[in-house]
Amino acid sequence: MILYDSTAAPNPRLVRVFMAEKGISIPLVQVDLANGENRREPFLSKNPMGGLPVLELDDGTWIAETVAICRYLELDHAATPLMGTSAREQALVEMWRRRAESEIASTIGNAFRHTHPFFANRIKQCEAYGRLCLEQAPDKLAWLDGVLQKTPFIAGETYTIADITALVWIDFGRAVNIRIGENLSHLRRWHETVSARPSASA
Amino acid sequence: MILYDSTAAPNPRLVRVFMAEKGISIPLVQVDLANGENRREPFLSKNPMGGLPVLELDDGTWIAETVAICRYLELDHAATPLMGTSAREQALVEMWRRRAESEIASTIGNAFRHTHPFFANRIKQCEAYGRLCLEQAPDKLAWLDGVLQKTPFIAGETYTIADITALVWIDFGRAVNIRIGENLSHLRRWHETVSARPSASA
Repeated sequence: MILYDSTAAPNPRLVRVFMAEKGISIPLVQVDLANGENRREPFLSKNPMGGLPVLELDDGTWIAETVAICRYLELDHAATPLMGTSAREQALVEMWRRRAESEIASTIGNAFRHTHPFFANRIKQCEAYGRLCLEQAPDKLAWLDGVLQKTPFIAGETYTIADITALVWIDFGRAVNIRIGENLSHLRRWHETVSARPSASA
Repeated sequence: MILYDSTAAPNPRLVRVFMAEKGISIPLVQVDLANGENRREPFLSKNPMGGLPVLELDDGTWIAETVAICRYLELDHAATPLMGTSAREQALVEMWRRRAESEIASTIGNAFRHTHPFFANRIKQCEAYGRLCLEQAPDKLAWLDGVLQKTPFIAGETYTIADITALVWIDFGRAVNIRIGENLSHLRRWHETVSARPSASA
């Protein structure tokens, strides 16, 4: 397997952290986002949507979309499960992963996409929407603080893909000056814990 | 099991179609979205995010988030797989489901959320963003037409959760006057085929 990667973007980091937790080590090929290498051939043959990361399987299959890649790696490397094991657990992890995505990743991602100069010539930006997301980010982080008041990790007692999702997007939020407020003690405790795992530097 | 449902919204329909394809029949309890029954107790104990549908398991566990519910039902009722079987297939179905979500469901969903009076007092609307989504919808449908030029169903040869996702959101698009253009013959052929399945009326 090969992972088409970029050290500049949150979704590739999500997959790298996921692999590090599972002890999976495969070749990483850097794709130059700043120069638009992902928006032209030969990359577009791998992923016509132009997004990173992309996982190339040994049979030549290309799998795009971060969660699809994680799903493949989870099934292929069942040890160290990060997406739950029983049906009930898998569903609950998926529920929390999606909440981490819709509340945290989407808010921070859209704040970046719709206000940052990087995307100015790449998408049709809607600055009003980007500002709304920036404005809502503190409330979303406060929501996550409330979740983490009750449990050590987002989906409960165990570190899962929901934690990885929140970690990489919260860290990426620095690009648009979104930071964890001093008063969010549960979120800060969690962030310190998950950042101390060796996988966090993957 | 019990499904907390609403006949007015696309996500509950997605789960009903998914269940109909699998031959799963469980009690449906209607939650009155128009009157905000989903934004107060006792519903908020089931899903603090206030969203529908919610699946209640026999042990009392509440599972929210549409895809998490589908994941539970897929694992619990392995016959008639709608999310792939091998690791490679599951990952590819997830890739296409996410594309159906990010390109079609998000565009139509945000066009509705940010322009429709239903959400005026429910969320902080950003009309400029809603209009941008409305404006982009024809291109997104044209993208899906291109996908369906190559394969009978979105993820390939088989009907999957990716088709259900696109079906319920495209149909819901009528609420904001988004319709499949006459020229999109592949998308029209697909829409006719998937709408003719008995599950479409679930």
